[in-house]
Amino acid sequence: MPRKSFLKLTISLACLLSLLALYSFLFYANPPNHTTPIKSDNLHTHKLGINKKVRIYMYDLPRRFTYGVIDSYTAARGGEISGDAQKRYPGNQHSAEWYLFNDLNSPTEDGVESAVSRVMDPNLADLFYVPFFSSLSLMVNPNRPTSMSSYPDGNAYNDEQTQEDLIDWLEDQVYWKRNKGWDHVFICQDPNALYKVIDMVKNGVLLVSDFGRLRRNQASLVKDVILPYSHRIKTYQGDIGIENREVLLFFMGNRYRKEGGKIRDLLFHVLENEPGVTIKHGAQSRESRRIASQGMHTSRFCLHPAGDTPSACRLFDAIVSLCVPVIVSDYIELPFEDVIDYRKIAIFVDSETAVAPGNLVKLLRGVSSERILEFQKELKKVQRYFEYEHPNGTVKEIWRQVSLKLPLIKLMSNRDRRITTRDSKEPDCSCLCSNQSGMHVVL
Amino acid sequence: MPRKSFLKLTISLACLLSLLALYSFLFYANPPNHTTPIKSDNLHTHKLGINKKVRIYMYDLPRRFTYGVIDSYTAARGGEISGDAQKRYPGNQHSAEWYLFNDLNSPTEDGVESAVSRVMDPNLADLFYVPFFSSLSLMVNPNRPTSMSSYPDGNAYNDEQTQEDLIDWLEDQVYWKRNKGWDHVFICQDPNALYKVIDMVKNGVLLVSDFGRLRRNQASLVKDVILPYSHRIKTYQGDIGIENREVLLFFMGNRYRKEGGKIRDLLFHVLENEPGVTIKHGAQSRESRRIASQGMHTSRFCLHPAGDTPSACRLFDAIVSLCVPVIVSDYIELPFEDVIDYRKIAIFVDSETAVAPGNLVKLLRGVSSERILEFQKELKKVQRYFEYEHPNGTVKEIWRQVSLKLPLIKLMSNRDRRITTRDSKEPDCSCLCSNQSGMHVVL
Repeated sequence: MPRKSFLKLTISLACLLSLLALYSFLFYANPPNHTTPIKSDNLHTHKLGINKKVRIYMYDLPRRFTYGVIDSYTAARGGEISGDAQKRYPGNQHSAEWYLFNDLNSPTEDGVESAVSRVMDPNLADLFYVPFFSSLSLMVNPNRPTSMSSYPDGNAYNDEQTQEDLIDWLEDQVYWKRNKGWDHVFICQDPNALYKVIDMVKNGVLLVSDFGRLRRNQASLVKDVILPYSHRIKTYQGDIGIENREVLLFFMGNRYRKEGGKIRDLLFHVLENEPGVTIKHGAQSRESRRIASQGMHTSRFCLHPAGDTPSACRLFDAIVSLCVPVIVSDYIELPFEDVIDYRKIAIFVDSETAVAPGNLVKLLRGVSSERILEFQKELKKVQRYFEYEHPNGTVKEIWRQVSLKLPLIKLMSNRDRRITTRDSKEPDCSCLCSNQSGMHVVL
Repeated sequence: MPRKSFLKLTISLACLLSLLALYSFLFYANPPNHTTPIKSDNLHTHKLGINKKVRIYMYDLPRRFTYGVIDSYTAARGGEISGDAQKRYPGNQHSAEWYLFNDLNSPTEDGVESAVSRVMDPNLADLFYVPFFSSLSLMVNPNRPTSMSSYPDGNAYNDEQTQEDLIDWLEDQVYWKRNKGWDHVFICQDPNALYKVIDMVKNGVLLVSDFGRLRRNQASLVKDVILPYSHRIKTYQGDIGIENREVLLFFMGNRYRKEGGKIRDLLFHVLENEPGVTIKHGAQSRESRRIASQGMHTSRFCLHPAGDTPSACRLFDAIVSLCVPVIVSDYIELPFEDVIDYRKIAIFVDSETAVAPGNLVKLLRGVSSERILEFQKELKKVQRYFEYEHPNGTVKEIWRQVSLKLPLIKLMSNRDRRITTRDSKEPDCSCLCSNQSGMHVVL
């Protein structure tokens, strides 16, 4: 067929289809709609336009996507599998998925109001939570062979396959299709979690640690929520003060990291022989956590360099240690930044300044005791935001952050449904652009 | 009286008044207040992190930016200048600036809660409203010579100069610089309002009609608020029904428009000889408004084609007329789309389909009476959103929309302050991208 005729045919077909869609819409009055009939108690709050709790529905996923992941993890390590009621989540820094799941499963009797309320009827829901343990799924196999081809016998746990099965399951859900996924909430706290299917879930609200592995059209501050890692060392129980903090600057962690994390080796070079500085190479272990705990509780400043991605749990360890974080990670995104002004609790140093010999130590030695105490006071104030088990802590704040997304989600859902095809060379994006004047263009 | 004694007296009087105020506060519970210092119920909601009223400070701009613009407008037409208390805003479709200004100037005793409360102390403010009458400023001179060179004598009103003077004035304000303008709210309802200085105010929340004249890095659905035009014809007071609506489709307005508005002429071609269709060329006038009013109140459908920009007041005229809008404007953005599902109150037809001969009329003739009544019922439900004078109407909804921006504003302000220079080829943007699958690439 000549190209032109083909094009004509395509356009005619498109017109016909548009018309058909319009007809079906117009002729069938009140098509069945699940779009939340307004109830009397909502009418009042709706009238005010404020104060309304966001209603969230948690999918009753097949067990293999939640408790089953813990079983697989335990089995892969030869452990004993317990009943679901007794189950414990394997300790790790990406345990938000466990806390959120449990929070929605527990009646909220703790007296601290949440910004969301769980509804058991999806028809009443504003948002849909998909409680797949995506971060743990990534870690089930101790040596993390994630690619399917690594499993010749096809029996071992397969994270990629599990991700794809989740999407297959979602594709059967009427609510998933209804709004192109805009109103769905996914947790993928490990920067690599859900990587195989991320393009399929990118319309949803993603609960993430940073945007290190995500492209601009997959995730953003506007659409998604930055979560803190669970801190791995104990919260410092003492009061503010510098008497018991002899060490100026402390760091313990892996010296060698990929990408942005290469800065670590450079920092070791400029810091390892400085008096007053403790900087040690060490991998995760119970013993190293004990040493780090001891170190962070007795230091004034704690270094937070970028890891493989800009974020790392060390920042949150420092916060709960009342050890003032020194953040050297130019692309870091921080949790709950609308309510926390991080300049009050941390020192930011750009990478270039930080790796120049002598700079960092000189800068920190110049900080007065009063200023350190002020930092510590502010750290105390915001600590609860980083405690997943605090009744007014991380979990409540995550739900509040999620609830704030609702107006834009509703706007985008309504808009997407009514929009006609636009002639455009660019995708149809609404953006918030920052720091443009300070932009440093790489030549 | 020597100056010093006078000063002493003044201070003593001030002390006395303060004491009196304290007494009256202590003895008379519940003093009337419009500035809402944190009250006990706010403390509670603050703890929850939800439900908090957004505190807005309205700048006390030099008179020339507000009432003075009305005076200049009146003077340019040889009218008589009245006192500020008696002043009326010249009737036009971009009068939101007047309603918002008056709303903040009036104590809110109407019993309908607002999402914002005005504070008189800028230190307490979350947001700063700049009440410059930018749309009227554009229209002061009847023949709109906006360029400065058009004023050889330099005495006539000059919109561009006024815009620049506003920026000069802002540059002296400490709150303007504090957060790079993120927390400032500007009204520029006419698509050309503030055009000369838009790049200087683009960090702020812009209250606009559409994005027809704005680039992606200047405005977006994420940052800004889409306002409805003030309807120019009378609200239809009758009930729903089609008995008195003999005309199938009605349009009256300028046949010839620029850019996207070129579709109007094409629509005239396919519609002007169709039976049951009333389509007339006409400019704005009192008489044409009377005819349009009559026409819209007696038609079933009202055509809304794009104008010079995608939006136009006709849509809102149609809504208050209970005349089902037929929207042919592919790039239109709609007010309050998070709470209004426009598919329930309007029919969207893409331009290509609409201009194919016979299509539109055939489509509309096929819509059943029941379906029209349903549209009308939904129109009645949302009418208040388009009535600027309704106590629970447009003004309240605009403030609610503005208040929803606060978390992102705070996030961006905090983030901007702590961010280190990033090496990047692109601006640092957070986006929400839509309709990507339906994107129509121009080859």
